[in-house]
Amino acid sequence: MAQSVEPAQSVEPVESIHRAAVLHGPKDVRVEDRPVPEPGPGQVLVAVRAVGLCGSDLHYYAHGENGPNVLRQPTVLGHEPAGVVVGHGAGVDDLPHGTAVAIEPAHPCGTCALCRAGRYNLCPKGTCFGSPPTDGALAEYVCVPRDFVHPLPASTDVRLGALIEPLAVAVHAVRRAALAPGQRVLVTGAGPIGVLVAQVAAAVGARSVTVSDVAAERREFAARLGLHTVDAAGLVPDPERAHALASPNGYDALFDCSGVGPALVSGIRALRPGGTAVVVGNPSRPLTELPLAWMQRQELSLVTSFRYGAGDFAAAAALAGRVQLAELVTSAFPLERAAEALEVALTDPSQMKVLVEPAREA
Amino acid sequence: MAQSVEPAQSVEPVESIHRAAVLHGPKDVRVEDRPVPEPGPGQVLVAVRAVGLCGSDLHYYAHGENGPNVLRQPTVLGHEPAGVVVGHGAGVDDLPHGTAVAIEPAHPCGTCALCRAGRYNLCPKGTCFGSPPTDGALAEYVCVPRDFVHPLPASTDVRLGALIEPLAVAVHAVRRAALAPGQRVLVTGAGPIGVLVAQVAAAVGARSVTVSDVAAERREFAARLGLHTVDAAGLVPDPERAHALASPNGYDALFDCSGVGPALVSGIRALRPGGTAVVVGNPSRPLTELPLAWMQRQELSLVTSFRYGAGDFAAAAALAGRVQLAELVTSAFPLERAAEALEVALTDPSQMKVLVEPAREA
Amino acid sequence: MAQSVEPAQSVEPVESIHRAAVLHGPKDVRVEDRPVPEPGPGQVLVAVRAVGLCGSDLHYYAHGENGPNVLRQPTVLGHEPAGVVVGHGAGVDDLPHGTAVAIEPAHPCGTCALCRAGRYNLCPKGTCFGSPPTDGALAEYVCVPRDFVHPLPASTDVRLGALIEPLAVAVHAVRRAALAPGQRVLVTGAGPIGVLVAQVAAAVGARSVTVSDVAAERREFAARLGLHTVDAAGLVPDPERAHALASPNGYDALFDCSGVGPALVSGIRALRPGGTAVVVGNPSRPLTELPLAWMQRQELSLVTSFRYGAGDFAAAAALAGRVQLAELVTSAFPLERAAEALEVALTDPSQMKVLVEPAREA
Amino acid sequence: MAQSVEPAQSVEPVESIHRAAVLHGPKDVRVEDRPVPEPGPGQVLVAVRAVGLCGSDLHYYAHGENGPNVLRQPTVLGHEPAGVVVGHGAGVDDLPHGTAVAIEPAHPCGTCALCRAGRYNLCPKGTCFGSPPTDGALAEYVCVPRDFVHPLPASTDVRLGALIEPLAVAVHAVRRAALAPGQRVLVTGAGPIGVLVAQVAAAVGARSVTVSDVAAERREFAARLGLHTVDAAGLVPDPERAHALASPNGYDALFDCSGVGPALVSGIRALRPGGTAVVVGNPSRPLTELPLAWMQRQELSLVTSFRYGAGDFAAAAALAGRVQLAELVTSAFPLERAAEALEVALTDPSQMKVLVEPAREA
Repeated sequence: MAQSVEPAQSVEPVESIHRAAVLHGPKDVRVEDRPVPEPGPGQVLVAVRAVGLCGSDLHYYAHGENGPNVLRQPTVLGHEPAGVVVGHGAGVDDLPHGTAVAIEPAHPCGTCALCRAGRYNLCPKGTCFGSPPTDGALAEYVCVPRDFVHPLPASTDVRLGALIEPLAVAVHAVRRAALAPGQRVLVTGAGPIGVLVAQVAAAVGARSVTVSDVAAERREFAARLGLHTVDAAGLVPDPERAHALASPNGYDALFDCSGVGPALVSGIRALRPGGTAVVVGNPSRPLTELPLAWMQRQELSLVTSFRYGAGDFAAAAALAGRVQLAELVTSAFPLERAAEALEVALTDPSQMKVLVEPAREA
Repeated sequence: MAQSVEPAQSVEPVESIHRAAVLHGPKDVRVEDRPVPEPGPGQVLVAVRAVGLCGSDLHYYAHGENGPNVLRQPTVLGHEPAGVVVGHGAGVDDLPHGTAVAIEPAHPCGTCALCRAGRYNLCPKGTCFGSPPTDGALAEYVCVPRDFVHPLPASTDVRLGALIEPLAVAVHAVRRAALAPGQRVLVTGAGPIGVLVAQVAAAVGARSVTVSDVAAERREFAARLGLHTVDAAGLVPDPERAHALASPNGYDALFDCSGVGPALVSGIRALRPGGTAVVVGNPSRPLTELPLAWMQRQELSLVTSFRYGAGDFAAAAALAGRVQLAELVTSAFPLERAAEALEVALTDPSQMKVLVEPAREA
Repeated sequence: MAQSVEPAQSVEPVESIHRAAVLHGPKDVRVEDRPVPEPGPGQVLVAVRAVGLCGSDLHYYAHGENGPNVLRQPTVLGHEPAGVVVGHGAGVDDLPHGTAVAIEPAHPCGTCALCRAGRYNLCPKGTCFGSPPTDGALAEYVCVPRDFVHPLPASTDVRLGALIEPLAVAVHAVRRAALAPGQRVLVTGAGPIGVLVAQVAAAVGARSVTVSDVAAERREFAARLGLHTVDAAGLVPDPERAHALASPNGYDALFDCSGVGPALVSGIRALRPGGTAVVVGNPSRPLTELPLAWMQRQELSLVTSFRYGAGDFAAAAALAGRVQLAELVTSAFPLERAAEALEVALTDPSQMKVLVEPAREA
Repeated sequence: MAQSVEPAQSVEPVESIHRAAVLHGPKDVRVEDRPVPEPGPGQVLVAVRAVGLCGSDLHYYAHGENGPNVLRQPTVLGHEPAGVVVGHGAGVDDLPHGTAVAIEPAHPCGTCALCRAGRYNLCPKGTCFGSPPTDGALAEYVCVPRDFVHPLPASTDVRLGALIEPLAVAVHAVRRAALAPGQRVLVTGAGPIGVLVAQVAAAVGARSVTVSDVAAERREFAARLGLHTVDAAGLVPDPERAHALASPNGYDALFDCSGVGPALVSGIRALRPGGTAVVVGNPSRPLTELPLAWMQRQELSLVTSFRYGAGDFAAAAALAGRVQLAELVTSAFPLERAAEALEVALTDPSQMKVLVEPAREA
């Protein structure tokens, strides 16, 4: 039974039935009535205001599977939600009704060796919203453990809370690089993750941030956010040029957000001795031609970054006001049109971030 | 013999004789003619544009000594200089004439175990500008090893380069705390170092920065820089309140810039479990009443910060445009009035940073 | 209901009633019949073979309280247990009956910010065996979450598993110092924790380990374990000598296991510039006269160490064979004589580690 | 002029002419008379007792070049020397005549950004013994900066000091992995570096160390040193098995000392989530088929290790007594037969470490 907590701002009364977008099979999304869940001990009930769509949603939507994970029963998608608190389970007393929050969607076991070591993003026993068979957040309401709900700054539009998940990916990547103040950063790939990583790197004190992409429109998008851009062609590993770049004046850190081997390799060639490359974008295939002997002479490190871990989501929520998020939203759909939202995100390469907004008029 | 390097902007021709402010004994400063030094191999000659005065200058000026270090022969003071490059020794080919630079004043041996370990600020064999008997920079010209000269951003007034030294102290302190993005920071002491540490903490992604001081005018000064301030009295270690503060919502890091024991202890009491206290201000006396058993139950760390080390000065120069520096300068004097500048800095507690500007009209 | 798992070695059948030593008030210990607990999901049932007594047990025994924690209802003491697995809850399938294990006694919540950050020893919501009102392990059987049970090396006497808890304290302390291979280590205080820290420091590659104590018999005890010892009087902070010690040839790390202020301060004076002091022993009173200004010029760090965290207990169990543990056990009592064991541990200063062995003949 | 320092043990008088093995071109080694060098300020003169031959010596000997570095003038090879101190330059007063020392052969500039950051192994301006045109140590005497000379433990045969260089490579590699106490280590490649890395990993507290190789005789060699070995074929990336290995029970760290791509990849597949792979052996060609997407899901790190840095050589010298070094020496030749020593090292694959001993009877 939900506890009574003083409302921060008025919110609608919670009905007993709500609507959810359920994936039954490839390209088979049905918006259905479901009972509104009751928050258990330590949980809150959130009225969802926006859910961002991302690559793994699109894999399930298009193919009914994502890597090793397969849809075997109808599942609600969506793992980038934001909303307002409308109910409290036993033991939760600090998030008033109406608090705008972003929701961390992956929930680790809390007791395995990896969880205890502070690397809960690697927990082999965890669940994640929208990873079948765990239902996600393309719905009017979700229940979430209180510790995985992160208040947004007062000035942030609750719908932009849906961007906190990719922003947390960026925060985690930047943390993996262990940047020192005043370092030079290169980001390869100017997609949503790339421009978020670039903005986070600047927000944590990088001296300079350079974003590269092969696509002119992506570079223009990054430039509109005020980022310094270069054509990725300029990073092609020309031995002569690489030698010049890999001087003590090369980049201190590379974040590959492209997932494309040649971009990663050309970025690595542009690092200074002792620099660090972080793999952020999902690599599209086994990497060929990594210049390992050259990397060893420069004593470079290649670090991978997976999701987000301790403190990253809270830090992303806290940084929301210092990063341009609204500019990444290229379309928004009501919940009733969730299938259309998924189709647009899947087929229109000019989309950066597509939102589903359950409270939006259909 | 100085090499020929293309000028970046026109600078005056270098004379063979220049003026320097020499300390002969307590309160005995004489501006004297001296031969302009010739840059040796790997050095540059810098025309000094501004020198900040700090506590150790004032100790030498007032007492002829600073801690264990004693003035035994006439010495030029000054270790916070900035200027423009006007000459190059053999082997220096990358800083054109006229380049505006900040000067790192402490020069380590480069080969001892501490230098090799990257902790050159602890080198037992190093020298420092203005630490007797090594002459400092209260003069029209100085020669400096090129690796200890740091170009300023194009938009920064060269005279503000004199603030890079205290800014590097702040950068080093922040680096010692190993802040993660989105952390909560408390700074005790709103003097020049305190407000610089606070600004650097914000520039490297702190979620919030709070500055405390007992003096209302200091808090007002910090508030004018846009910093959030609290009365240090509010941090007095009240057991009840301390308990509330030392929750997981306490501060992640404390930077004590006051040098005063009770401020440090009250700040420590306000840390979250696992937090870090950094001692930045010079402690004025042996610390009494450190609550060590309580600190152990919270597993707190107490880290000290001394000067600046690898990369800190360069990072400070790079961050110059993102930190309010001009607001710290409360007076400026020509070189001929160096004695007056030292006297004002010594006796007027409302002064934040006093500059001596050798190129200024007397 | 306990699952069936193949026995590793034969163990006695589990009865439904067992004996436990219950503290009813100061010096009021009664051995009582209690129902044997049933392992819940994810738990194992352990037949206790040995329990070490430590300072907090003695505080409860003597005064009915330990720091802020007060005995308000009859509670079983004991938080340093070892034993053999004799039952499995649902979902545990990897520790056969008869497996010899050490038991990690503190159980964090697993979801708060500190737990998620990998610092679960600081969890404000956790419980600990033998901290009232949580029952401890002075009993024939205990149930424990499987993730907090650590198998012992095959060659280790299961009763020495009771020493894994203090050994984990030592491992954690050493980890807090972030020792590099080949460093020089000083340990002040040659009690049980001190000699374990010294042995762990050697086992992780210290170049040299020196143990100091004011008491000759403690030094002799350490020397019998093969440790190099010095009289703590030789570490008294003589300014001249301190100067010599604090050269680049000083100690890299200090572990204060004495809990006594002067020992800590003299050890700090013996560190090299940039060295680290770790507070391991419980400080007996607020620390006075910390030489903070001197520490800052050497840029020393003062780190505290509390219990043990991620990986420490498992590491301690793994290192059991490389550390002399049996030599620390000075007495052992059957469970029926638990009160006598506590009294001896409380009153006989020559005792290092007193064990209670529930399977021992009374 | 060499200073007078009290002799530790008697050594022969230093002549004015000594013998050195000079490489004039591929396979053209001539032992020639040369004047004995005079130690300059801060240097010591060392009578060489043993020099180990390694891969880069053999590249120069066979081809007159090593990677980008080309022999353009006659050069003395040899960069793994040990010997006894027989002379002191001005300012050196702490290594008595006769002190047995290992010599760190690479000498960085000490002032560039990388040196100042404590990563002097990456200094772009440094020199190294035996890297043309810098003369090496295949001679009766060498002069070395005192800070690059490391005393050996009293019990260590001075000739085994020639093994400190590869041991320092191993120490650096282990340090790059940032091993915690009690971790599980896998070493791929059981050559000289592999068995040294394995021994260092054990000496710094690894729970277990496993060494793999495809060659049975290499595994037997490692086994004779007491190391646990497996056939590298057992590490072939079988998807089913890899899944089992890459559990939380996989290896914490991999050190690839084979330089062979498939060994590295199979080792990576055997890591636990969050594990670290260190590239120690020189990669023989660009790496193909790195399973980057899989690595990202496990958030693995790939770190390279180059030579040795701050503290590594001193740590290696300190650990000399805890590592089996003599077992690695498979042949020794007098200086007059240096050409034969190089030829044997080049052509006999059963050789582990070949020494040249200048004081040995021809």
